[in-house]
This record gives sequence, C-alpha cells and structure tokens, in this order.
Amino acid sequence: MTSVAASAPPLDQSLVRRIRSVVGAEGLFIDPDQLLVYESDALTQYRHPPSAVVLPRTTEEVSLVLALLHAEGRAFVPRGAGTGLSGGALAVGGSVLVGTARMNRILELDSENRRARVQPGVVNSDLTRAALLQGLIYAPDPSSQSACTMGGNVAENSGGPHCLKYGVTNRYVTGLTVVLPDGEVVELGGLEREPEGLDLVGAFVGSEGCFGIAAEIELTLIPESEGVRTLLGIFDSMEQAGRAVTDIMARGLLPAALEIIDSETIRAVEASIFAAGYPTDAGAALVVEVDGVDAALDAEVAIARACCLSAGAREVRIATNAEERLALWRGRKKAFGAMGRLAPDLLVQDATVPRTRLPEVLRQVGEIGRRHGILVANVFHAGDGNLHPNLLFDRRDPDQVKKVEAASKEIMEVCIRAGGTITGEHGVGFDKRAHMPLVCSHEVLRAMARLKEAFDPLGRSNPGKVLPDGYGPRSGAGARGAEVGRGT
Amino acid sequence: MTSVAASAPPLDQSLVRRIRSVVGAEGLFIDPDQLLVYESDALTQYRHPPSAVVLPRTTEEVSLVLALLHAEGRAFVPRGAGTGLSGGALAVGGSVLVGTARMNRILELDSENRRARVQPGVVNSDLTRAALLQGLIYAPDPSSQSACTMGGNVAENSGGPHCLKYGVTNRYVTGLTVVLPDGEVVELGGLEREPEGLDLVGAFVGSEGCFGIAAEIELTLIPESEGVRTLLGIFDSMEQAGRAVTDIMARGLLPAALEIIDSETIRAVEASIFAAGYPTDAGAALVVEVDGVDAALDAEVAIARACCLSAGAREVRIATNAEERLALWRGRKKAFGAMGRLAPDLLVQDATVPRTRLPEVLRQVGEIGRRHGILVANVFHAGDGNLHPNLLFDRRDPDQVKKVEAASKEIMEVCIRAGGTITGEHGVGFDKRAHMPLVCSHEVLRAMARLKEAFDPLGRSNPGKVLPDGYGPRSGAGARGAEVGRGT
Repeated sequence: MTSVAASAPPLDQSLVRRIRSVVGAEGLFIDPDQLLVYESDALTQYRHPPSAVVLPRTTEEVSLVLALLHAEGRAFVPRGAGTGLSGGALAVGGSVLVGTARMNRILELDSENRRARVQPGVVNSDLTRAALLQGLIYAPDPSSQSACTMGGNVAENSGGPHCLKYGVTNRYVTGLTVVLPDGEVVELGGLEREPEGLDLVGAFVGSEGCFGIAAEIELTLIPESEGVRTLLGIFDSMEQAGRAVTDIMARGLLPAALEIIDSETIRAVEASIFAAGYPTDAGAALVVEVDGVDAALDAEVAIARACCLSAGAREVRIATNAEERLALWRGRKKAFGAMGRLAPDLLVQDATVPRTRLPEVLRQVGEIGRRHGILVANVFHAGDGNLHPNLLFDRRDPDQVKKVEAASKEIMEVCIRAGGTITGEHGVGFDKRAHMPLVCSHEVLRAMARLKEAFDPLGRSNPGKVLPDGYGPRSGAGARGAEVGRGT
Repeated sequence: MTSVAASAPPLDQSLVRRIRSVVGAEGLFIDPDQLLVYESDALTQYRHPPSAVVLPRTTEEVSLVLALLHAEGRAFVPRGAGTGLSGGALAVGGSVLVGTARMNRILELDSENRRARVQPGVVNSDLTRAALLQGLIYAPDPSSQSACTMGGNVAENSGGPHCLKYGVTNRYVTGLTVVLPDGEVVELGGLEREPEGLDLVGAFVGSEGCFGIAAEIELTLIPESEGVRTLLGIFDSMEQAGRAVTDIMARGLLPAALEIIDSETIRAVEASIFAAGYPTDAGAALVVEVDGVDAALDAEVAIARACCLSAGAREVRIATNAEERLALWRGRKKAFGAMGRLAPDLLVQDATVPRTRLPEVLRQVGEIGRRHGILVANVFHAGDGNLHPNLLFDRRDPDQVKKVEAASKEIMEVCIRAGGTITGEHGVGFDKRAHMPLVCSHEVLRAMARLKEAFDPLGRSNPGKVLPDGYGPRSGAGARGAEVGRGT
C-alpha cells in the first residue's frame, strides 16, 4: 500500500532555462527539498516526488510550458490544492508537476446572467464568498471546499453534501479553455450548457487530469436560497435512520442535504474538541437540510420531522437560528478531524450503492472491520447512496496496513455485489486504477483509452491514472524521446 | 434548402439474405415505396431515401446487423420516431436506416431505487405513464413526448418545458448498452451516474447517433410532485413578460416551467380550434408552473403572482384544478399545431442566448422577419434563454423558401452576436453542420472529430451529421469497400 517511487530524472539545464523564462524564477522548483512537499496528495500512502514543479500564471503560460514539455517528450501531472483522495495528483514516472496555485483569479462575475469565469486555482469557497456579495453561490460543496480548487473540482467532477439537490460539478461547468497536452489551446462550450455538436465539455469534466489542463473555467452560479432550515434526528439504530431517509425521499421532498453519521463517528466527535452535543449512546444521527423560498420551508421541516419520528427517532432537534444550525452540522463537518483522535491514519473509502441496499451494505462493512480488527467509522451522503467508510489505522504498523488493505478491498467487493461502483465522488486516480477491471469490461476500458487518446494521443497528461496497465495511448507515459507529434 | 439526394445504391442480394435471417422478413424493407416513408424526419426540407430500413428487436440483433454492415463497409443511420428537427435521421449517402420501432419494451422498472431500463424505441410519455403507476415520472418532456423515443432523446440530449427545474436528458441517463459501429457491445456506466473512470455515458448522450446505437438505456426516475400550481400572466409587451421572468428567478424561485408565448402565437392559437381564451390584443403571455410539496406551493404562487404584477401584468390567472391547469397550458402546448393555420410550412429555429439578452434579441428577430416579409412567431423556454422562433412559409413557393433561408441564417447570427449558440436542444444534425464553424474553432472541430473517432473510427455511424465537411474519421462516410477493421 505504501509505495515510494525511485527518484525521477531531473530536467536538463536548457529545458529549465526555457521554462523559467516563461514562468519566472518563482514559478519553477527543482530543488529536491522543495519538491518533497509535492510528493503526495491527500492520499498519503503513496509518494512520488516530481522531477520539477511548474507554477504558471496564465493560460498562455500553461500553453507555453506544455508545448516545451511536449517537445521534450516529458509527461506532466496537473495539480490544484492536492486535496484529492485517490492519488490523482501523484507525479508517477518522473512527471513534471504543473500546479495552478498562482492561477487564482476570478476573471469575471456576471451576476445578471449568473455566470463566473475563473482560473483553475481559485479555491471553491472563495468563489462562493465572492458570489455571495451578489446574492449568488457556487453550488457543489466538497468537504474540502475551504482548500480545494475549481480546477481540481472539474478534474474530479466533485460533489459534496448539498449535491443531493444541486447536483455535482458537471451540472455547473458551461465552458472551458483547455490547454491540450501539446500546448494547443481550445475553447470548449461556453454560455448555457447545451453544447453545439459533440459534448467536449462533458467529456472533459471528470477526466481526472488525463486530457490536459483546464486553464479557464466558465461556471453557472445559482441564487442564494432565501431560507434554509436544518434538523437533526437522533436514532437508536442505523436501520431507523435509513428508513427516515427513504420516507423523506418518498414524500417527494428533495432536501439540500441528507447526511448520516454512525455511532462510531458520533463517539469520536463527542470525545473531541468539536463536541456537538450528540448523545453518545445513539445508533445514528441524520442531518436534514431543506432550503428554498422561506415561506415554503416550515411545511417541509414538518414533513421531515414527521418522517424521522415515524421511523423511530428518539429525538428531533430543529435549528432556529444560524448558530444552532452550525451546531447541528458540527458532528458531520468535523467528523474527519475528530477521527484523528482515534488513529493517526485514515483511509476514506468511497463507493456508491443503490439507496435501498444501504442498511445491508453497512452491516457487511461493519463485519469486515470487526473481522480484521480495524475500526470503521461511517459518515455518508445517504440521499444518493454514497458511502464513506473511514478505516482507521496506524501506517507505521505494517500489520495494520495489511489489514486495512484487505478490508478496503473486501468493502469494495461488497459494494460491487450490491450493484454499486468503486467510486462515488473521489475518482479513480492512482489508487483504484488496478480495480477498474472489477467494474469495467475490456471493451469499455478500451473505449476509455480511445477517449483519452482523442485528447492526449501520446499519453502525456497525468500518466498512470484511471486506466489500468495495458490500456492507454500508444506511446509510453512519460517516456523520454518518444515520438513527437500526433500519430494521425 | 430543399434537397433530394440521388437514389442510394441497393444492398446486394447476399447481404439482404443475411440481414433478413437476423431480423425476419418483417424487419427489413428494401422496396422503394416502403423506403419513401423514411426519406426525411420532422425537418421536411431535406429528403434522402435510405437504401434499406432494418428494424431489429433486441440488442443482439442490433449487434449482428451492425456487424454485417461493417463487414460490407456500409454506413448506417439510427432512427427513433423521426420527430427530430435538425435532420439527424436523414439517410444521406446511401446509408442503411436502422430503426428502433420494434425495440419498445420497458425492460425493468425498479421503483424502490427509482430506476428504469428501457429499449430505445420506448416512447417518452409511455415511460412516464408506466412509472406513474408507482408514483414516479421520467422528467425531461420534449414537446414531441407523445411520439419521440428514448433512443432519440439520448441522441439529442433532449430538453422540454420542465427542464428549467429538472434538467435535460443527460442528468437522467445512468447507464447505456451501446452497440459500436462494428457490432461490438459495450456496457457503459450503470447505477448512479457518478461514473468510474472516464465518462463514456456523458460523451455518448447528445452524440446525435454518431457513436453507435444505444440498445438499452438505464434511467433515473423521480417522484411525481405532490402538488403542482400553474399561473398565466397576460402582458401588454414582451419586455414586461421578460422582466417578470427575471424577477421570478431573482427571488430564488425555481419554477418547473417558465414559458413565454408571443402576440403572433397568441393570435394563431385563438384563431384555431385550440382557442385557449388568451386576450388577442396581449403582447405576451407567460406560463409559470411550480411544483413540489403541496404545503409549500401557495407561498410560491403568491411570489410568482407578485412578480408578474409588479412587472406590469394586466391580469394573472391561477388554475385551481387540473382542468383549469390544462386550459392555461393549452396556448403553449398547441402553439405549433395552431401555426399550421397560418402557413403550410414551419421552420422551428432553436437557439440559446443569455437570459438578460432576450428582449433585445427578440426585437431583432422581429425586425428580420419583417424585413424579409416572413411571419415569425415565438414560443420559448424563457427561464433558460432557449428561443424557438417559428418561421412560417409555404415551401411550394421558391421565393419564400429563399427568404426563410436568409432570415434563418440572420437569426442565428444575431443569437451568436448576443453571446448565444446555434442550437438549444434540437441538435446540429444535417441542418446546422455547415454553420458549426460559426461557433467552433478549427481546433475544437478537430477535437470533436477525434472524439467521434474514439467510438466510430471508420465514420460509419450517422455520416454527414454534426461535423462539417473536412472533419471526420479517416475513411469516407459510407464508402463501400473502405478498409475494414480498426486503424490502430
């Protein structure tokens, strides 16, 4: 599970000079000490130091940098804030890391047409903060939203707690300025996302950095809800919480969020400095949030409350002001931080199963944890069946690492048997590419490889990600001296 | 504008025998009289009789038929109900038409997980009718929903009046069984639409039949709304109606539909047997529909009403029962039929502009019509800026045809100058492919061609559509004796 790559070949001096002339001295790191920071993303089990880190500031600089790398046959890895959980920004095989940290400008905010145009390094919550001044928000809200960047959100097609109602990133991206792996700049989409012709924007969003670099992103903003109401249901068992979710959806409510926190997580949160006042003997807690026109919300809250009670909730708390609302959310938002108390390392699994299979899958996940002696804590987007089992361990203990590895694989298999998939919203990246044949046939993997080839015929953009070995563009990833120029 | 292709080369006898052995005698038409029915779709200006029509019943039959055509180097055109408005199902260049008329079974309806699996020939409204028995609906509702098929909806990424709130087809397609142009069957996606790996489903939806045939489609259903309320605002001018739309959206309401009908259309409807009781001296009518939890709707209706009145509505009618609701909708739903009274032929333009540019674009569209002496009637999805100017004419008069052609081109140019696109929801098809360079750069068109090549390397699936001349897979569309087998 833990792997550290052999150190990557350094760039030659003339390439260093040419890149530096584009991005300036502060835009290129080649000192091994500086590179150390970039050797992994938020999936810390794997470490691959890049051969260099380049930080362009503009679309033009991205284009010039990729053209220089292309001419030298060097592969590159796009990187936002490095918050990814699937190793998507690992610089495998001597790749050059191209970071967007200096591309953090909001280029345009057109409140009348509810559109924004941003550079890829803009932080998700900074965009919403700027939009709020005009009464608008950017809807997808990954848990890492205070750090993760819009370029990374596009690459991963990111979701978040509020995506049950508002949908994930691809619903909001209307246009992209993409720098292809050879440095060519193309404008995809634009305006409303009913694309003319084939849907290149749709193909690019979620491509995990394998198609090039989105150097500018055009997005739809939505109006801030007039009102929002949050309630917390406390249940004796996970089954009851699951039933409440099913009932709420069956009544036709579409809450902005429906989040379940399991008993392990509740106890971890309550033992931490983030204590949210959840009863520590509860079997599960359910956060329900509805938003919309203020006058309509009381009725929706009443329905959600009734569903919780009839499913067996021992208690339903309703926030009456912003402060109480934050308190109800605290157990969910701080869950990951609180788990840090229980073990130094945490593997967040990410899988989606049909909503009706949740109780049974959760039972099996619990059994797998117990059998391997690994503590598993669950917080998840219950409304759309997206599970996040957290496997707690200490990576300094090779025996625990082995157990986590085995448990993690079994959890994936359980999800697949239940009709689910191996990734809900964190992507395939480096971590799960070897498991792709579990869920995709040879023909589908070949079609994916051809799709990648349409954007990246030489396999230079984010090599070693998503597609398993044996599926990829014709030339080796990052191979120096590979044939330059398109094959056709 | 009117074009009739030279008659296509017939299939040779051995191919006819082999296809017939797959689909049976009732599954193959080669008699010119039978083929006449298939020489155009709902865009009747163009006529291209196919060389044969094949009607498979199952995925396996589709696969066998495409493999036979592939081996002979014949191109094919997928066709649903032929309701398309961009000539996407025209059998140009001697193509074989592969119709889905006999693939009309709903294979699975899983109400617990709100999913359906259907064959591509299932009619849109038949799916909703079946789902309603379980309290569910299929959300996208094209105007042609009582005839158009799910395969066509996937090909065109279809919208409809209620897509303002509910989104278009790509939000609902979770999986596809696709038969590639060489007959190979691949399973794409499945379950919740957070695809693992590259998003092949996203790339396929909206590909206008150019990537192969979707032989099975897995869809998300949503619960029928508990309640629905409809109101109709009558305005003296289009500007007022436009302002009401802007205000309603700014208040944070997300109506299920926001549809504007202009004065020409109102008069056409009122003069027809569909008379809906709209005042014939009105400048515009606005249909607003909100749906959701019943208890919340009165508040939303009150807000919508207030927005209409403050924008200057002379009258606001609110439906109090299902019958009144249908009456309010009548002017919108029957608009196309009523226009038949005004002229024998109708060209529906389809363009999207930023919502705030609507009043100005509508004024220019009116001027263009007057200058060419062509009557233009507008009904449109105001909430998302999707215009449908209807150009009324008589195609037996070559002079009128020329004027409509010129006016249509000018309308497109106006929309593009306003920051819009040339297609909102009807696709590029055959009709608009020559205009693609107006909105896409050479690099983007090349990227689209590469994307098509990933699915259809020999250019056999729906030749002569979407991409303009000079952009396409390496071999000629429908060329007999072309190289067989993939190039790489």
